[in-house]
Amino acid sequence: MISKIPGGVTAAKGFSAACCAAGIKYQNRTDMAMLFSGAPCAVAGVFTSNKVKAAPVLWDRKIVTSGGPAQAVVVNAGIANAATGKTGLNLCRGTAEHAGKVLSIPAEFVLLGSTGVIGPNIPLDRITAGVSAMSETLSDTLEAGTAASKAIMTTDTVNKEIAVEFDLPAKSGEGTVTVRLGGMCKGSGMIHPNMCTMLAYLTTDCAIRRDLLQKALSAVVQDTFNMITVDGDTSTNDTLLVMANGLSGNRCISEEDESYNVFCEALFTVCRALAVRMAGDGEGATHLVEMRVYNADTKENARILARSVVASSLVKAMIFGRDANCGRILCALGYAGPDFDPAVIELYLHGERETVCFYRDGCVQAFDEDKAAAILGEKEVRFSCDMKMGSAEATAWGCDLTYDYVKINGDYRS
Amino acid sequence: MISKIPGGVTAAKGFSAACCAAGIKYQNRTDMAMLFSGAPCAVAGVFTSNKVKAAPVLWDRKIVTSGGPAQAVVVNAGIANAATGKTGLNLCRGTAEHAGKVLSIPAEFVLLGSTGVIGPNIPLDRITAGVSAMSETLSDTLEAGTAASKAIMTTDTVNKEIAVEFDLPAKSGEGTVTVRLGGMCKGSGMIHPNMCTMLAYLTTDCAIRRDLLQKALSAVVQDTFNMITVDGDTSTNDTLLVMANGLSGNRCISEEDESYNVFCEALFTVCRALAVRMAGDGEGATHLVEMRVYNADTKENARILARSVVASSLVKAMIFGRDANCGRILCALGYAGPDFDPAVIELYLHGERETVCFYRDGCVQAFDEDKAAAILGEKEVRFSCDMKMGSAEATAWGCDLTYDYVKINGDYRS
Repeated sequence: MISKIPGGVTAAKGFSAACCAAGIKYQNRTDMAMLFSGAPCAVAGVFTSNKVKAAPVLWDRKIVTSGGPAQAVVVNAGIANAATGKTGLNLCRGTAEHAGKVLSIPAEFVLLGSTGVIGPNIPLDRITAGVSAMSETLSDTLEAGTAASKAIMTTDTVNKEIAVEFDLPAKSGEGTVTVRLGGMCKGSGMIHPNMCTMLAYLTTDCAIRRDLLQKALSAVVQDTFNMITVDGDTSTNDTLLVMANGLSGNRCISEEDESYNVFCEALFTVCRALAVRMAGDGEGATHLVEMRVYNADTKENARILARSVVASSLVKAMIFGRDANCGRILCALGYAGPDFDPAVIELYLHGERETVCFYRDGCVQAFDEDKAAAILGEKEVRFSCDMKMGSAEATAWGCDLTYDYVKINGDYRS
Repeated sequence: MISKIPGGVTAAKGFSAACCAAGIKYQNRTDMAMLFSGAPCAVAGVFTSNKVKAAPVLWDRKIVTSGGPAQAVVVNAGIANAATGKTGLNLCRGTAEHAGKVLSIPAEFVLLGSTGVIGPNIPLDRITAGVSAMSETLSDTLEAGTAASKAIMTTDTVNKEIAVEFDLPAKSGEGTVTVRLGGMCKGSGMIHPNMCTMLAYLTTDCAIRRDLLQKALSAVVQDTFNMITVDGDTSTNDTLLVMANGLSGNRCISEEDESYNVFCEALFTVCRALAVRMAGDGEGATHLVEMRVYNADTKENARILARSVVASSLVKAMIFGRDANCGRILCALGYAGPDFDPAVIELYLHGERETVCFYRDGCVQAFDEDKAAAILGEKEVRFSCDMKMGSAEATAWGCDLTYDYVKINGDYRS
């Protein structure tokens, strides 16, 4: 059983966090965070599919693909360190070397993350000053994890963290131990299902073989971070990392057994919660939008159809306007790509207490406009579509398109 | 040589037009248009790739694929006749039969078009009353063509028409004759490069074999209507039709010779002009945006890269805000799909008099922010990217993302 518990990245045993105001771009707020594990961690990661990859993405990918281990993460908000050429790569090396020195670990054990404006260079002296300061304030309290989740925000309106616990067989062979998995993420604009998310860091005290950790992460991403969209723009910096230090004392997961399945379920719970919060906190968003496609012919087609609806500008604008213009949902399904029969599918709007049928038998249905408008006024708007083809299903999450999205992105740099 | 001349759909010999206020949804404005050719026309068309196709699209496609001929077009604005099942198909048949009767031509010679809200049924009696009224006011004046181009507008802010003329060898074998090609289109939202456009009708007095007409149209669409985007939403109704009645007296184009090439060039001129006007008249748009990708490895990759930039919500919002945040353009190139080397490409912003280099040698360049902001303030904003891979190039057009886009689409139906 997976239980939600308080906290985020410091919920699991052996992980501490810190943050500071390094003045990299933002003033009067924290803009750097550090995570540290007392023991080296198995590490797995998923990175942006953008051909233009930020320097920290290149740095982290090398650590992950070479097999790790990792023991620390250093993140800054405000400048992305992307499109910065060799200068950007040198900054990564300098940051990791300094962090390695103050934390007494190899530079290659230090993962990096940056988020913010593409183009400018980050001043190395501010980064190293920040790293030094944070290394002296690392704390394993829940508050330290929360503070770190706030320090990495850019246009986010709320910080995002979650933690769960579950039991696994003990290493000793007698009984079970409690394992914890927590995470934090930031992301509001530049999120799109073609990859993971902006920045997400998960920590667990589970003992699990590195290749299985990567396999679990890659699988879970498909139905969580890859199913959200805010604006269809895929960032140069998107990074999802999970670090497992094994300190819970569970018997190391080394095959795809029942323990592996429990871990995957916990990972799914954490990733979905963080992903949905990111979708709901899309830039300028006033609604979380959920689209569930079921009875599709294949899982992949269900995903494509669901994502097409939450990515549609017209659907997003209609939800902002509380206008039950269901033809736009039908239209977004139609141009998604997968084949289906428009004459048989059924389309629904689900409120907290009521469901409205929008479309059936090839025709838009007569429905109570006031009722539909009331449902569209709820904070979370849910649609579903029965494809009548098979048994595959998928759910995608997004948000509405608002004046504030345009405002935020019309003048992001200043 | 292709020369621009005044007028639109009535510029070519033998074509007349009419419009009326049928009161289908809009009040106090014209909302129906009719085109008529004195002689049967070879007809070619390109239609929406959306799986959900409006009834008039199904009707027209049948006429085009069965080889025509066609002699009239009846269009209404306000209701799309999409997601209307058998009722919608019956309305098409009823409309064509009535038009055929009053125009003394077979019902199968009548092409149909609808644009507007998806879902509602169009009242047949208003359509037939409109058809009767229009059949009595058909006129071959340029003014009649302009009035028709206004009657089919929905959220368009300006009507869109153009006509050109060019010389081709005469049928008589002696000298040349002047051939004319004109067109009108409407479209503002729901336009996306995955297909042609909302509604576009071209008329010409050129004599050309039907299969060559279709071949020319299908080719020209790739670099014109398929290269514009407003919001990434592909309509259920998109239709592009060209009717050729042969009345100019040219020797019928029956092979891919010099005359065919001249005709293709004229078709390209007309289609590009209409497509670019649609992009610039995107819902709520204040700028036309052009992205030219050159020295790409393949034509298809150049198209994909160029379209990705003009389709990016972040790029569109940045242009609205006149914020030279060039990392967003780089980012949109990066997630487009085609492979390229971010370390060698070069990115430029072109003003009427000056050019600014945004990105080179893997780094965002230092540039004069005031100069860049001034260029972004021009009505037409142009970017280009040298991919340094080959010799293929493509240009895409779009518009900025504004508060008004959100406003228009937050409450489109009322």
